[in-house]
Amino acid sequence: MADSADYKFMKLSLSLAEKGRGKTKPNPMVGAVLVKKGHIIGQGYHRAVGKDHAEIVALKNTQGQAKGATLYVNLEPCCHSGRTGPCTDAIIDAKISKVVLAQKDPNPLVNGKGIAQLRKAGIKVVTGVLAKEAALLNDSYYAFYKNKRPFVILKLAQTIDGRIASLNGDSKWISSPKSLRMVHKLRAEADAVVVGTGTVKADNPALTVRYVKGENPYRIIISESLKFPAKTKLLDNNRDFKTIIATTEKAMERFSKTKKGHNVIYWLLKKNRQGGISLTDFMEKARDFNLRSLLVEGGSKLATSFLKADLVDKLILITAPMILGNGINAIDELNIRRLSQSIKFHDEYCFQNGKDFVFIGYPQKRGR
Amino acid sequence: MADSADYKFMKLSLSLAEKGRGKTKPNPMVGAVLVKKGHIIGQGYHRAVGKDHAEIVALKNTQGQAKGATLYVNLEPCCHSGRTGPCTDAIIDAKISKVVLAQKDPNPLVNGKGIAQLRKAGIKVVTGVLAKEAALLNDSYYAFYKNKRPFVILKLAQTIDGRIASLNGDSKWISSPKSLRMVHKLRAEADAVVVGTGTVKADNPALTVRYVKGENPYRIIISESLKFPAKTKLLDNNRDFKTIIATTEKAMERFSKTKKGHNVIYWLLKKNRQGGISLTDFMEKARDFNLRSLLVEGGSKLATSFLKADLVDKLILITAPMILGNGINAIDELNIRRLSQSIKFHDEYCFQNGKDFVFIGYPQKRGR
Repeated sequence: MADSADYKFMKLSLSLAEKGRGKTKPNPMVGAVLVKKGHIIGQGYHRAVGKDHAEIVALKNTQGQAKGATLYVNLEPCCHSGRTGPCTDAIIDAKISKVVLAQKDPNPLVNGKGIAQLRKAGIKVVTGVLAKEAALLNDSYYAFYKNKRPFVILKLAQTIDGRIASLNGDSKWISSPKSLRMVHKLRAEADAVVVGTGTVKADNPALTVRYVKGENPYRIIISESLKFPAKTKLLDNNRDFKTIIATTEKAMERFSKTKKGHNVIYWLLKKNRQGGISLTDFMEKARDFNLRSLLVEGGSKLATSFLKADLVDKLILITAPMILGNGINAIDELNIRRLSQSIKFHDEYCFQNGKDFVFIGYPQKRGR
Repeated sequence: MADSADYKFMKLSLSLAEKGRGKTKPNPMVGAVLVKKGHIIGQGYHRAVGKDHAEIVALKNTQGQAKGATLYVNLEPCCHSGRTGPCTDAIIDAKISKVVLAQKDPNPLVNGKGIAQLRKAGIKVVTGVLAKEAALLNDSYYAFYKNKRPFVILKLAQTIDGRIASLNGDSKWISSPKSLRMVHKLRAEADAVVVGTGTVKADNPALTVRYVKGENPYRIIISESLKFPAKTKLLDNNRDFKTIIATTEKAMERFSKTKKGHNVIYWLLKKNRQGGISLTDFMEKARDFNLRSLLVEGGSKLATSFLKADLVDKLILITAPMILGNGINAIDELNIRRLSQSIKFHDEYCFQNGKDFVFIGYPQKRGR
């Protein structure tokens, strides 16, 4: 049974974990707190892949005085050697008497085995404290193991009347500088950013992380036409070998005769029944490429395709306080004719971000 | 000079004033606090038109012990006899030594005269404490005197992708029960609710205050066609003589030959250059009818007309966490082609309301 102190210290672990946002991929965000007689004697979080796990940071913090302490950590301690040694050994060696967890680690290399090792060593283990909060914190990590495909975040920036651009295509900048920084943080968190041809033509985006610190994600253009303007940043600024073009074999044949981007990675995908690129095939390719999370940044056509295919796991909708009236709709035809068929959400919330307001929600799967 | 205690007590006055929301029309919401040696000795708010003003409620509260006290009130005390006697006399008689105000009363019957009377009686008067907050609290009251026309609030309930109905016209209910209660409160606050023919046909609304306590507003249908379904609530449930049909002379000639609603008030308005009903004429008629605030509840066509005519003073946008894709746009063609021409806002904010989130903002006047 968990008590109120357990919730307090787990909440602290979660907020410590949050500090690693955008820096830990492909690892989850983890925070740890060590408590002895009601006092915090050590705390820490996982700062970046390859660096100490949160538990180890917290243990080092105590300078060997952790005997008999309770460890609070939002994820099950690992029991395998990866880039770092197993945390379970360190916890057992430090003579921790109790471990309070939010969630099991869904990674099959751990997934309960860590808990079993701790219990075998006589350590009391409590699980499920702030489990939901912990699951939402590392939503893409859990979903990757559950769905066995990359977690798809759809991000759109729109006006309050639901337009992503004016009729003349003008979309720079609907959202505020603060929201742009938020988007760059989302990019740093994602394994890849995905856009359609329309967005490449209209915005010529770099899709890099510039306004915050963080690693650039892969940049994927899903394109059936492969018709790009002469100076396309995604094709030209590609020294890091991180631009991927997802297209069809047929389009590729034509494309190869014209200008190619340097160092570009090509994915040749199947067509769907409507003759477009198969998103099912795209998702498989992305998974095989070891991408765990995709940030779909638009435009309208791509956003609509992902929603229609029931592939959006999380929506981040940035709404700027302006009205355009007629314009390019953020989301287009979904073959929905009744309110009862509309896409609903769970765990949704909204907050103000500078002048914009942001809606975040998880679309309920509709099934088909 | 105002000090921090002044802000604290004025804040309390404002929150007391807020309690009268929906019950004071056509009066503004006013709260008052009496403080002696740092202690609150009386407080009150204006509960309803015809009832004691806030200052009087607070004074009665002290049972004659207000001598030497400071009075905090968000609006200048009245100096004229209306339904109740002048507050300035009561304040002077009670030997209040200081009055702290947020705002002058814009009503020309007061507008500085109250302050002058108090000062003449030797009472110290401080003004401008939380002036902006006070102005926003009674936004429609201030605007009515400033603009010399009714204050127009546009209320729309949409999906997060900006649709007010699915393509088959289905719009019941986009917003949650909590938002419906909010809308009913807005109705209780407004002098009149305004809808277009499309909304009457699609929703057959009663436009009454049912989910909260409060007085029913006038119900105005702006209609060029005057074609209503057989059982139209606004025409049938009209014992209170509160349905107004705003139309043109020509439409009226045709209408008189068919079924008329009982007790309906007709406004015969001029046409605008495009052949529709002139909203300028409509606003003049509404002002002459002594309506100070109008709640425009849609549909899309009417909302768009008011926005296009630069007549919306406040937007209340209820957004439900659902996506429809294609559907009926909340706001239609405004002849805006560039982001820079978009309608911007001031003093905007958003909050969660049950499952919905609500955006409130004041459109910046664009001029023409």
